[in-house]
Order: sequence, then structure tokens, then C-alpha cells
Amino acid sequence: MGVRTPKQFCSVLERPLISYTLQALQRVSWIQDIVVAVTRENMEAMRNIIQRFGHKRISLAEAGVTRHRSIFNGLKALAEDQPDCKLPKPEVVIIHDAVRPFVEEEILLRVVTAAKEHGAAGAIRPLVSTVISPSADGCLDHSLDRAKHRASEMPQAFLFDVIYEAYQQCSDYDLEFGTECLQLALKYSHTKAKLVEGPSELWKVTYKQDLYAAESMIKEKISQEICVVVNTKEEGSVGHLLKEVLKNELNCINITSTALDHTGGDIQNFLIDPCYSFICVNVVSSGLQETQKFLRKLEESCLSPLYPVVVVLVHCLDFTLVPLTQKMENLMWIRELAKEVKTKNVLLNGLLINYSQDEQKLQENLRQGASIIAALVKERSSALAGQLLVA
Amino acid sequence: MGVRTPKQFCSVLERPLISYTLQALQRVSWIQDIVVAVTRENMEAMRNIIQRFGHKRISLAEAGVTRHRSIFNGLKALAEDQPDCKLPKPEVVIIHDAVRPFVEEEILLRVVTAAKEHGAAGAIRPLVSTVISPSADGCLDHSLDRAKHRASEMPQAFLFDVIYEAYQQCSDYDLEFGTECLQLALKYSHTKAKLVEGPSELWKVTYKQDLYAAESMIKEKISQEICVVVNTKEEGSVGHLLKEVLKNELNCINITSTALDHTGGDIQNFLIDPCYSFICVNVVSSGLQETQKFLRKLEESCLSPLYPVVVVLVHCLDFTLVPLTQKMENLMWIRELAKEVKTKNVLLNGLLINYSQDEQKLQENLRQGASIIAALVKERSSALAGQLLVA
Repeated sequence: MGVRTPKQFCSVLERPLISYTLQALQRVSWIQDIVVAVTRENMEAMRNIIQRFGHKRISLAEAGVTRHRSIFNGLKALAEDQPDCKLPKPEVVIIHDAVRPFVEEEILLRVVTAAKEHGAAGAIRPLVSTVISPSADGCLDHSLDRAKHRASEMPQAFLFDVIYEAYQQCSDYDLEFGTECLQLALKYSHTKAKLVEGPSELWKVTYKQDLYAAESMIKEKISQEICVVVNTKEEGSVGHLLKEVLKNELNCINITSTALDHTGGDIQNFLIDPCYSFICVNVVSSGLQETQKFLRKLEESCLSPLYPVVVVLVHCLDFTLVPLTQKMENLMWIRELAKEVKTKNVLLNGLLINYSQDEQKLQENLRQGASIIAALVKERSSALAGQLLVA
Repeated sequence: MGVRTPKQFCSVLERPLISYTLQALQRVSWIQDIVVAVTRENMEAMRNIIQRFGHKRISLAEAGVTRHRSIFNGLKALAEDQPDCKLPKPEVVIIHDAVRPFVEEEILLRVVTAAKEHGAAGAIRPLVSTVISPSADGCLDHSLDRAKHRASEMPQAFLFDVIYEAYQQCSDYDLEFGTECLQLALKYSHTKAKLVEGPSELWKVTYKQDLYAAESMIKEKISQEICVVVNTKEEGSVGHLLKEVLKNELNCINITSTALDHTGGDIQNFLIDPCYSFICVNVVSSGLQETQKFLRKLEESCLSPLYPVVVVLVHCLDFTLVPLTQKMENLMWIRELAKEVKTKNVLLNGLLINYSQDEQKLQENLRQGASIIAALVKERSSALAGQLLVA
């Protein structure tokens, strides 16, 4: 990676990578406990991450100097024969990497099910490059048949006794230089692991380009769901028009809408299926108070500690009737409010759309408005929060 | 990738991936000819790409149904014994993938030098995941020692006769199912390839996340160089102040500055070491004409077909003396001009900075201005072109 920070603590959208992985695991209700192996010098930082992002069911174990030693220490935290073990021994244990944040319930379930049947199981992927074996002088000795080999990825799952016994029996050499848990289960517990084809999203964040990719994947993920908040339920209103244009512009994005009532809107809905992008369409009012109420609700919903929440206040008006700059002057409060909520990870912007009487122009302006909204939602740039944009 | 478009034709910043790879190769003066193997149905698209992005020294060969057949066809275009060969036979031939756009001259030189000495050479990388061999029933047969294996990447280089003879002798089975050119050189020309450790940037764009990573890498690359265009050479001017803040905000970015004269500025400089981000700081004038001249020069420089060029027009003024909205009204031409130049891949924005008399506030505003500029330069979002932003 070329940086000093260990990969799992590198920041993606202002949150350490490991926090995304923990979130992915704790979302799965049938995972009872999550043990994280952390080096002594990062223990305090890890505790802060757990507290700051509200992670649950986490226990910490001390990492060893090699991968296998860290995993062994993690397993000990679940083993009955260890004096300081506080967690119940599980039937099945999953082993995962902190730097693979895109692990879904589906693949976890598949490896766990296979582990119950076979004793051990692990995710695999086709090889991207041919693997070769170099000779001692740095030349090609032979190349491997790509079709006959696979990359071993994570997650892996094991009957607890199978993997714990393997670690108890394995040699110091294994603990120092080994890289493959499935191999330990085979060698010491005579358990042939089932191999399960996993999705490409399981890839391991290793280099700078992987961190970039992870950031884009996360941004894409949280931009799939957009909520258009309107202050009227009328079908012909501009909010509904904009919703239609947004749907066309950003295909395959889920757009829900909710009406804003005097209590600040019913955003409790979004706690079940979380949404991190709100487009508030107020046709006439400048709506400082309504906005403040809405933002307060948003804060109470605890969405923003996990991801930056984008809020776009859309104002539609006919620029030939109300001069643009006059309207902008009336909306200067957005700049101040944006500064305030930015500290809470909410990115607030204003967007003025020229509600032209000319139908064709109106459609064009709505389309431009939609593409500005799409850029704000997809890029989540905190530097541009507070700006009043014009379509 | 999950899309129908072949990976090498996927768009990154509105340009097909393969065009970046061709650019990387043609930048190297000692590469005489570049032969691209293209399937018949993509031949026309490829010709358009070559023309649109001004690629030089390119010849097309027809791709085969497998990787090895395509490479063989490419080699035939350079072989004297082929009736329709129009290119001179080279001493050394490089084989590269269209989906590895970040190949630098340094690694090309290293594999070519090694190929001259050893007859064949290829870039390798450490394995990211352990490689395993599955048994017929989909279980682990054995895992390979990660330390004893490497991933074979590209570029590879060969004495032309070595690789051409290998392809002439190899079996249909090799041409159908083989993946490794180094192996062919070993098997048929008895040439042991030298393995050269390459940088991680050589990775192969294979999945959606790789395309995201490539986009971010390209954006980062073209954002390393920023040119601040000032209309005065005075040291204390706001342009120079802003340059200092930009330097602090965006560390390790190269900032040059040039004075804008009545001919539209001396941007010919940037043709030697191309720059794709221009921050024009006009202290007082609204500068429509100067800007138009500058944009015309930019067009003539042929920068924008390759990458979107960001131009930020910075206007500093004391908001307590000149009302912000009045100034904005005066700058409305930026919106129109931006629409016009966007069709030429130039992203124009206005930025108003409050030149406060209060030294501390001024510093804060300049810092905010710099972070807005950084966001515009790094994200190059065409949806936000034409906006007037305020710091």
C-alpha cells in the first residue's frame, strides 16, 4: 500500500476499512460473537472504532506476529480449555479478513453450511493471472495450468473442534510460515475442505488501487437508495416530476418518496432499510424551520455516523418571475446550516431549478437538476457541501 | 465484469480503457510499432478510437478466438515470411494486455533489456491469495506454498524469433487452452524467461471494482499537476496567496504558475509536461474576453480530447463591499460559456472567495477555496460544470 497505517485501519469515507467489515458481519443475525485479533499497539484505536461506530458483539484478542498465530489467539478466545475464555464455544467458526469488507450473508451461509457437512469450507475464485514457479536464478521454472487451480479467498468456516485441534497440533514452522487454514485442517484434522465459488466482491484490499475501488464500491452501494421528500402528495407536483426524471437518469436506483409533515417527516421508515440520500423538494417556501426539523430527525436516526448523508434542498421557481440572485440571497441560510451539520457527517446542498413555462426547457432543466443530484449523491464530496447550485 | 462491452472498450472518464494503454505505449519513443489484435466486429470501433484520440504507430491485426491465437496473429503482422506483412521485423517484441493501462516506460525497458539477454522475460508479482488445487469433487486437494510461486503479469518481451518460432511450432491444444507465452518460449524455443518484479500498478482490469480503481488512478494521475494562472506577477497578490494555500492543502501536488498576458497566456508550456487543471485568478475584472482567449488557447493545445480539462475562474472580492449576489449576477456568463466548452471536454467553474479584511477569516476562506478547487480537480464531475461556487 505504501503507507504506514495498517491496511485495515486505512480510512474510506472517513471510516476505517475494518469498521465496514465488522458492520457486514454484525448485520448477520446468526453470527453470535465476533473476535478481532488486534496488535497491542492498535488495541486502543480498535476500542475507539468499536465505540464510535457502535459495533456490537465484538471481543478483542491479541494478535500474534503472523497470520496463523493471530487466528490461533482468536480461536482461544472461544475455547473452553482456555482459562480466560469468556465466550461460549461455537459449533462453527468463520475465519475472515478485516480487509474484505464486501462479504454478504449469502456466501457466509454457504461456507457455514458446507463446513457443517464437511468439517471445513472456504471461498475460492478463478485465477486472474497465470501462476508460475520461479527457479533459484529468477527464471521461469514452470507455469501452472490456470484451469486446474483456484485462488483461496475468505470467508472460510470450520467445525470449531476441527480447526482448533489443527492449530493445537500444528508446528511452529506452520505458525510462522503457513498461510492457508484449509491446509492445516487437512494436515492435522484430516478434514478435506469443501471449496465454494464466491463472488468477485470478496477480493482483498491490498494495494492503493484496491482502496480506491473499495471507496467507489461503498459509494455506489449507499447511492442505490434515494428518498425524495415532498411537501405535497399531489401527483402533478414538481417533486413527483423530478422523481420521474431521477428514475430515468439514474437507472436501477431505488427511489422512494415520503411527504414531509409538520413534525419533520416520517424518516423512521429508513431505519429498516437505511437510506443515505434525501432530496427535499419544497416548491415555494424557503423552509429553514422545516429543514431544521428534518435534519434533527435525521440526527436522531443515527444514520450519519456510518456514512455521510447527502441532503439536497431543491427549490423550483420561474427565474423570469423571481430573479435568481434574489432567491439565492433568501437561501443563504443553507450555507450556514451546512457548516453546522457537516460536523455531524451530513452534507447539505441547495439546488435551484428554473421552473420554466416552456415544457421542453423545463424538462431540460429537470434533467440537469437530476444529473447534479446524481453527482452529489455519488461523489459525497464534503468540500462542496453548503453550495447553492443552479439548473 | 457483468457487462456486455468487452473490458478493453469500457469507458473510463469517457474514454475506452484500451486508449489509455495505447497512450502509455506510444509515449515510449523506442517502441516502433504497436499491433493491436481486434475481433472483426470491433474493428470499426477500434479504428474510430485510434482516430478520435490521435493514436500513432498503430497497426491492426485480426484477433483469434483465444488469447494465444490473437497473439499469434499479432506476431504474423511483424513476420517477414508472411505475405501481407507490411511492418519491419523487430529485434524484440513486447506482448501486453489492453486492460493494463498503467504500464510505465521503466518496466518496459526492464523486460526488454532482460529479453535481449535471456531471449524472453516477463513481469511478475507476489501472490495476493494462496493458490490451491481442487480435487474432482470440489474439495481441497492441496495448497501451494505462496512464497514459492508468483503471479505472471504483463508486459512480457521476447527476441522476436524466439516467440515467433514457439508459436509456429506449438500445438492446437496450446493455442486453444494455453495462457502463458513464457511457457511456450520454454517448451518450444527452449528459452528460460527471466522474471522481473513489476509494480502493483500493472494489475489487470478484470472486475467492476478494477474499473473503479482505474478511474481513480487516472484521476489521481492527472490531478498531480495544477497550473495557477495569475494576471500579475506581484508576490503579494491573491493568486500567489492561493497558490501557497493550495500547496499546503494538497500535499505532493506540483503547482506551477504563469502570468496571463493579452494573448491569452503562455499555455504552450503545458504541452511538454501536460497539465489538465488550470486555476485562473482574476482579482477584479470579470474577464469574459480574457477567459475566452484562454479557452481558445487551451483548445488549440489538444489537451482536452485525452482527459477532461478543469478550469476554475477564481474571483476574490470583499463581500462586505460588493454584495455576493451582485457579483454572481455579473458572472452569469460563466454558466453559458461552461455549456459551450463542456462539449469540448473542458469543465469550467466559477469560484468566488470572500477576500475578508480580517486576516484569520481570509485564511479560512482561502483554505475553503482550496478545498473546493481540490474537489473539482480530483472529481472532474461534468454534472457540476458551470456552477458558481462560494468560499
